[in-house]
Amino acid sequence: MNEQAPRSAEATPVTVIGLGSMGRAIAGAFLAGGHPTTVWNRTASKAAVLASKGASLAPTAAEAVEAGELVVVCVLDRDAAQEILHPVTDRLAGRSLLMLTSLSPAEANETSAWAARESIAFLGGAIMATPDLIGNPEEASLLYAGSSAVFELHRAALELLGTSTYLGDVAARASLLETGLLASMYSMFAGFFHGAALVGTQGVTAEEFTALALPWLKAMTTFLPGQAEFIDKGDYTTDVQSLAFNKGGLDHIMRISEHQGIGTDIMKPIAELIDRQVAAGHGSDSLARLIEGIRTPKA
Amino acid sequence: MNEQAPRSAEATPVTVIGLGSMGRAIAGAFLAGGHPTTVWNRTASKAAVLASKGASLAPTAAEAVEAGELVVVCVLDRDAAQEILHPVTDRLAGRSLLMLTSLSPAEANETSAWAARESIAFLGGAIMATPDLIGNPEEASLLYAGSSAVFELHRAALELLGTSTYLGDVAARASLLETGLLASMYSMFAGFFHGAALVGTQGVTAEEFTALALPWLKAMTTFLPGQAEFIDKGDYTTDVQSLAFNKGGLDHIMRISEHQGIGTDIMKPIAELIDRQVAAGHGSDSLARLIEGIRTPKA
Repeated sequence: MNEQAPRSAEATPVTVIGLGSMGRAIAGAFLAGGHPTTVWNRTASKAAVLASKGASLAPTAAEAVEAGELVVVCVLDRDAAQEILHPVTDRLAGRSLLMLTSLSPAEANETSAWAARESIAFLGGAIMATPDLIGNPEEASLLYAGSSAVFELHRAALELLGTSTYLGDVAARASLLETGLLASMYSMFAGFFHGAALVGTQGVTAEEFTALALPWLKAMTTFLPGQAEFIDKGDYTTDVQSLAFNKGGLDHIMRISEHQGIGTDIMKPIAELIDRQVAAGHGSDSLARLIEGIRTPKA
Repeated sequence: MNEQAPRSAEATPVTVIGLGSMGRAIAGAFLAGGHPTTVWNRTASKAAVLASKGASLAPTAAEAVEAGELVVVCVLDRDAAQEILHPVTDRLAGRSLLMLTSLSPAEANETSAWAARESIAFLGGAIMATPDLIGNPEEASLLYAGSSAVFELHRAALELLGTSTYLGDVAARASLLETGLLASMYSMFAGFFHGAALVGTQGVTAEEFTALALPWLKAMTTFLPGQAEFIDKGDYTTDVQSLAFNKGGLDHIMRISEHQGIGTDIMKPIAELIDRQVAAGHGSDSLARLIEGIRTPKA
């Protein structure tokens, strides 16, 4: 990558392009942190509150880009970003570009390649938070991948938004990690809904269930590092909680769920992934081997 | 229920029937707590270590039952429990019987009815812990349902095993709650495996993924009480994070997962449950409405 090192400063001038609720929250955090902040949005009306907090309103995207050493783009998607950025490519050269726009991993890598060709120092990002949590490092986590120079140079500014994690120079990693985290969240929620539906068949309220499920699920997260170790070793040999043991657990859940008359949509594929590994002769291995069935989809 | 109130005491004599790893852990916790503890197992050899810690070894199940005011049964399943208990039914009359044996909700209710007919004060239980965690209230959670008299009378002894929660007089509730919690755990693990498989396609290790997923999933559990509120109200009206919004999230996860070449076994049913609610005209409702599709399985 042919990047010019952008100038460092105590409070770097930053630009935020795209002033939806997330863009406004980001610009607000930069302003609160003392950064000269220029903003631009296709419809200027959304910038009013930010102007009253001290933001400069750029009349054009080109002027917005020129005002910032770090240019943060927070628009709907890749197409919206390209439409704004491509006409101002020459002005972006030599600056740091951070895309906090939802990109697929492939789009992030394509954007990274384009930026490298145009001498733009590019960082891809993903925001693991809702706009109201931006600025709160306890609650907001942001993932970055791409130019380590951009990350290091602007780290203080990025930390104003939330806890910042750099994932390496493959730009796709930020959006891929985001997708993986969202997947794990949805699956946890879905399991919670299954449990709540199940206990509801005997009049237990979701509130009563949550009083147990919340500390239980938190406690169960402590087993994740152990599962990760099996996966990274690629060796699933274990003395405890084998797949055969867990098959019994899933069979029990399936049987009770059917007996209580609720659907097994959420639990059935888990039972099937375990069954597949057991049928392939891995019954004495760790539950973590289930991942092999996800990695290699059944034909 | 026609129960005789068992005699209270500072350190009630307890009996543990069934000395697998869990039964031994339970007997060990009672001994450590100063309870006169009698044990019995079909094969006596498993009792040796407990005897060295002060446990009395009963030569027969009948004598074991007679030695304890609280009789804890920790065997494989309902059939194993019945085989041991039915011949000594008359000796159980007037005592407290706690089944820490894995029962289905229906089996728990049947056992409760049998106990009521035989004047046995019955409590059903479920252990949310592995044997090595028994005796550690931070790590072990035990659920009880059935006779509140048994729970209150022996609460101090039960607290020796772990954090104890009483769920009401319907004995089925303990095993039903256990099943619901296990379901939510498996679904969380499955989502973690999906995420690890996804990020692994770009060389991110499971360890790197876990470093983010562990605090992320813990943070996401804080949204469960809000979801429970929707469910208990039966009103899913919301201003934020609608089903339509979440449909976008699931579509993104499905598309990226397919593009990266991994299976969508775990995520697809979640996407489908959301799609069903959106198709039924509930797109502006909360994600929690997904539970309605679990409660009412598709024909």
